[in-house]
Amino acid sequence: MSASRQPVLGILGGGQLARMLALAAAPLGVNALVVDSAADACAGQVAPLVKADWTDYAALEDFARKVDVVTFDFENVPAETAQWLAERVAVFPNPRALAVAQDRLAEKTLFRECGLATPEFMAVDDRAGLDRALAVVGAPAILKTRRLGYDGKGQFRLKTMADADAAWAALGAQAAKHGLILEAFVPFQRELSVLAVRGRGGDFRTWPLTRNWHVDGVLSMSLAPAPDIDTLQPRATELARTLAERLDYVGVFALELFVQEGELLGNEMAPRVHNSGHWTIEGAHTSQFENHVRAVLGLPLGDTGARGLSAMFNWIGELPGPAPVLRGVDAHWHDYGKPARAGRKVGHATVCAPDAATLAQRLEALGKALGREAQVAPTVEALRRG
Amino acid sequence: MSASRQPVLGILGGGQLARMLALAAAPLGVNALVVDSAADACAGQVAPLVKADWTDYAALEDFARKVDVVTFDFENVPAETAQWLAERVAVFPNPRALAVAQDRLAEKTLFRECGLATPEFMAVDDRAGLDRALAVVGAPAILKTRRLGYDGKGQFRLKTMADADAAWAALGAQAAKHGLILEAFVPFQRELSVLAVRGRGGDFRTWPLTRNWHVDGVLSMSLAPAPDIDTLQPRATELARTLAERLDYVGVFALELFVQEGELLGNEMAPRVHNSGHWTIEGAHTSQFENHVRAVLGLPLGDTGARGLSAMFNWIGELPGPAPVLRGVDAHWHDYGKPARAGRKVGHATVCAPDAATLAQRLEALGKALGREAQVAPTVEALRRG
Repeated sequence: MSASRQPVLGILGGGQLARMLALAAAPLGVNALVVDSAADACAGQVAPLVKADWTDYAALEDFARKVDVVTFDFENVPAETAQWLAERVAVFPNPRALAVAQDRLAEKTLFRECGLATPEFMAVDDRAGLDRALAVVGAPAILKTRRLGYDGKGQFRLKTMADADAAWAALGAQAAKHGLILEAFVPFQRELSVLAVRGRGGDFRTWPLTRNWHVDGVLSMSLAPAPDIDTLQPRATELARTLAERLDYVGVFALELFVQEGELLGNEMAPRVHNSGHWTIEGAHTSQFENHVRAVLGLPLGDTGARGLSAMFNWIGELPGPAPVLRGVDAHWHDYGKPARAGRKVGHATVCAPDAATLAQRLEALGKALGREAQVAPTVEALRRG
Repeated sequence: MSASRQPVLGILGGGQLARMLALAAAPLGVNALVVDSAADACAGQVAPLVKADWTDYAALEDFARKVDVVTFDFENVPAETAQWLAERVAVFPNPRALAVAQDRLAEKTLFRECGLATPEFMAVDDRAGLDRALAVVGAPAILKTRRLGYDGKGQFRLKTMADADAAWAALGAQAAKHGLILEAFVPFQRELSVLAVRGRGGDFRTWPLTRNWHVDGVLSMSLAPAPDIDTLQPRATELARTLAERLDYVGVFALELFVQEGELLGNEMAPRVHNSGHWTIEGAHTSQFENHVRAVLGLPLGDTGARGLSAMFNWIGELPGPAPVLRGVDAHWHDYGKPARAGRKVGHATVCAPDAATLAQRLEALGKALGREAQVAPTVEALRRG
């Protein structure tokens, strides 16, 4: 426990999620302390940062003494590190929940136990196992590492059975260390995510469903509240609540869903604040970042209602020139303070509006001014179709 | 100039204004560097802090080398310090504007030159001067220090001419050092402030007029957009623009006004972000803090439109228990991370609503839950009267 009057929130990982958590913590009178193996991790621009890796127990011991609660910017913190910390200080979400979410096999098994259908899947331990899985799952399918995959990394798409050798060549070497899973490729109509938060006392809330568009496996645009989801919202909320209660989850998480023929399929769960919830900073009465801080510190949760509609542009690799967003009406710029690098999430922008027609108009104008017509097109289309 | 890709904003003074400036700077990719004579100044919780006083030129030299632009959390930085810095790095607002706003006599003289009426006033240099001023200004009146007064400090109210000796006993000793001014006491109907921002290129904007209530000279509640100000907004905006252009002002400032018989009287100008503009964090599309950062760095200014109505509670001395605000709908908590102390501004809360009736209802409920019925009463009444 901290000696200071103000609670200190320890955050494992110092990327943009930690940065935005620290910024949301400050108005609550909560100070952040970040651990990252990189001294220049971008959260260190807004909060003190301890440079240490996940096995530097001397540094972690000191860190644990300085904080009231530990949470995660990054879900791939080794389970042993999370467990070791949990023996010394409150850690939310708990290490078991983290372990389930880290493992695609355990996660999808839990989804099914909770009544959430998933694409067909099967564990793959060796080359022969891949053939067995293909016989069950069929093609097209996606071979993925069970652990440590994110943003489309550690994945190989098999169009036909004949791609088995190529898939094994790409990922077979990781079978022993991280495990593999073969998942059926689902020709989904829409990708949604439900952002949810559960407090230390069990209070549970969701934000309105978010519709997401990915490019090359990385989130490109989000829109919330997702249009035409009236029938799906109660079911998505109920599934998220069941999952959270099973895991005794505390904090914010995102449940990524596919919509296929009007039915929800579970894709994956992110045990942390999530890229598809960045719109909540301006678009909801309480942001995912603020509610995560509140949840893990045992403060009352805030109102998750939306104000109007919001769309988020993800900036990958490098930032566009900010002027069109800075000049926009109800448009908000987020530069994470990271150097440009191919594939890296370096920032986002959120545009809000009181109704769908106005948001479509603002997005179209911004898309043009930014030279990002292709990025906004599917979102504008969804808004216009209603 | 900073060697880093990211601009660095230097802030003189490390209180809550610097803290909220730093928090607003981060999403713009701007890092803050704060100077304060107290190592534990609350802005240091969210930005690096240099401990130095205003005459520590070695520390200031180093500071100037590390920042791209210098601005103020605190307007009473000595004019010589501001000037010294301005010879080394861009300083906004410029030292001349700061000097005018630091001096009640220069400020009120400028108001009149710009066509803004003021309560009758006269400079007072000695005890005989006080009698001469009383003969002109009349009683009731307020004797104030010309410099270094804020939040009702350095003021003495004279109910009748007979209070002259008492007033001189209280403030006479400061006549030589800071100068004094006698101002007529105005039986105003309302106190308003206009928050304005001017960019480096001359772009100028105001937020909707804010109505303010003070208790013991310290801001207690603000309401924006102020009800019933349609006829006053254009005139207030025009006056603020004239002032800003005369001073070649860059950044945010607040012009405090009295309304007497439907006419505007100039009270004072704060050459910085202002307590009466805290509602803009949630209640406007761009906050005063973000637009100040944008202005001083030469970025495009953001939309100053309001979303719905907002009311701000100021927390003086100590924070109330936060739970009623945290549980409120569209209610926002701001703890400045400062220890409690009588008279100190330790935090605020903002409550927003789409219309006046809903805001009145939310304020009344919160006032009750917080045990602050008296604090909210005048604001609720103003909302109900419309």
